[in-house]
Amino acid sequence: MTSAEDSLIARYFRPLATDPGALGLGDDAAVLQARGADIVVTTDAIVEGVHFLPDDPPDSIARKALRVNLSDLAAKGATPAGFVLTLALRTPDEAWLAPFARGLGEDAASFGCPLMGGDTVSTPGPLMISITAFGRVAAGRMVHRSGARPGDRVVVTGTIGDAALGLDILKGGAAAAALADDAAARQMLIGRYRTPQPRTALAKAVRDHASAAMDVSDGLAGDLAKLCEASGVSAVIDAQSIPLSAAAASLRARGTVGIEAIVSGGDDYEILCAIPSDHADVFAQAARVAGVCVTTIGTIIAGTSAPTLLDAQGDQIILPRLSYSHF
Amino acid sequence: MTSAEDSLIARYFRPLATDPGALGLGDDAAVLQARGADIVVTTDAIVEGVHFLPDDPPDSIARKALRVNLSDLAAKGATPAGFVLTLALRTPDEAWLAPFARGLGEDAASFGCPLMGGDTVSTPGPLMISITAFGRVAAGRMVHRSGARPGDRVVVTGTIGDAALGLDILKGGAAAAALADDAAARQMLIGRYRTPQPRTALAKAVRDHASAAMDVSDGLAGDLAKLCEASGVSAVIDAQSIPLSAAAASLRARGTVGIEAIVSGGDDYEILCAIPSDHADVFAQAARVAGVCVTTIGTIIAGTSAPTLLDAQGDQIILPRLSYSHF
Repeated sequence: MTSAEDSLIARYFRPLATDPGALGLGDDAAVLQARGADIVVTTDAIVEGVHFLPDDPPDSIARKALRVNLSDLAAKGATPAGFVLTLALRTPDEAWLAPFARGLGEDAASFGCPLMGGDTVSTPGPLMISITAFGRVAAGRMVHRSGARPGDRVVVTGTIGDAALGLDILKGGAAAAALADDAAARQMLIGRYRTPQPRTALAKAVRDHASAAMDVSDGLAGDLAKLCEASGVSAVIDAQSIPLSAAAASLRARGTVGIEAIVSGGDDYEILCAIPSDHADVFAQAARVAGVCVTTIGTIIAGTSAPTLLDAQGDQIILPRLSYSHF
Repeated sequence: MTSAEDSLIARYFRPLATDPGALGLGDDAAVLQARGADIVVTTDAIVEGVHFLPDDPPDSIARKALRVNLSDLAAKGATPAGFVLTLALRTPDEAWLAPFARGLGEDAASFGCPLMGGDTVSTPGPLMISITAFGRVAAGRMVHRSGARPGDRVVVTGTIGDAALGLDILKGGAAAAALADDAAARQMLIGRYRTPQPRTALAKAVRDHASAAMDVSDGLAGDLAKLCEASGVSAVIDAQSIPLSAAAASLRARGTVGIEAIVSGGDDYEILCAIPSDHADVFAQAARVAGVCVTTIGTIIAGTSAPTLLDAQGDQIILPRLSYSHF
């Protein structure tokens, strides 16, 4: 009576459907109550061999799939409300599904973002996980890309470039050789690639203070260019002020990586935002309270040219490419 | 500056983002306004080689991807509000994308369900289209699977089994040989497989009158069993009363297909619902006004056993399998 597909959903995913509107995954659709708010909708998919590696741990794949969406919600100033999951699998391998569902469930619980529904399909191709996540934000208050104004400060959370270095290490690149004697640094950078940290704690401060915001997923340089283009402005960035982890700073100081790889690598999942100068102090204070490091890296200026990246001498750094593109 | 990925989104998909909340696909997220209603969320993915064939026309693939979700919304009594699209492509082949986007856009417009956002990713594997669709329904009024009560009539829309026969024809099966001289019948059945007809027009009548409803996607027999299980009831179905198209009836009369293939084939995307007997007349009238054929095929009864399918002699038909399962 019950198919294998239904059984695996009941066993692994029903425990994650803690919201009453999910109807225990036992219906064709879920009910999402807006509670007077706007619903913010974002969708991001990750594909085996493209966004994660075949031997990445299943629980970290699950976390990444959800977190890249939570990162978008945070950058838009929204509070997580739930998500739906499409899982394309070759075979229902329980040794893979059990840790996948465990990691997903732990993140769903800790970020307050329950599973609302989904679809499980078979595929002869690579594993693919597509998540559509929902957040709530007071009506009309979603933070757009398009509100940055000349004079606003350009602010990023956390550190930039770690995830790209982590991927380089997993692929046996130059960073792996340079850090051959530093297992802790290697693990930290790999962890930043595999398990991004969505800045959910900063969503309220972004909503209250940012004139524009987005998350950094395709590389800081390219994403800043998108924010500026949407806002009809330009920006000047001080490359020296871009926040780096100790490991990334060490690799940069030793010449293993240049600033280009740092700012165009992608997968950072930090928030990039524009903060009007008269909000800068109160935003910084709110970020401290939220426990999220924020760093001012430049200024929004008038104009429509691409953002300018300046080195320590004030000379412009020309980037060979701004960001990652799938095609 | 603009990547190939951004260009193809701008060229093919931005024209479909007609809702102001989609922000022209130029932001990281969309805003869905609930307008005091509950948001109904459903998600369904289709995979090349599994849910559609590699040489199916791109516009019909797009229509099917959206329509299987619209079918869920209709069965839940919801009015379409928008959808997000995840498209996993091997290469951005414009000769494929142009008709795909055209078909998707035509359906989005005709069903009042605009594109709100999405994600385009590259894959080395089969094409996959995952859609999450949203509908609105008055607070607390979504129609569940679980409300059927003994005495309710079991009603289906349209005709059952055509899509499975269409797939059989595309695969060169027995139906193809039996209809070798009837191109019109072959085309009708193939069309039913490739381009389901969501019963959006019936959503209001379902909301107003059905005690339980779902769409028939995995086969009538299995889906009725799910509805009964969710409702804690059983059902008796008269096989002779299951509505068939002229082509399906002819194939059945000639012995090309049995009732088993009709009721377990899947891909029907008709609405299956339970209608309390005192609502039967007014529901039938509402269906006529909506232009949707509905047929009573049996009765909900007390009990927890699987639904019973009776032949013309009143003998039980035993089905080898109830429905399609991915694994």
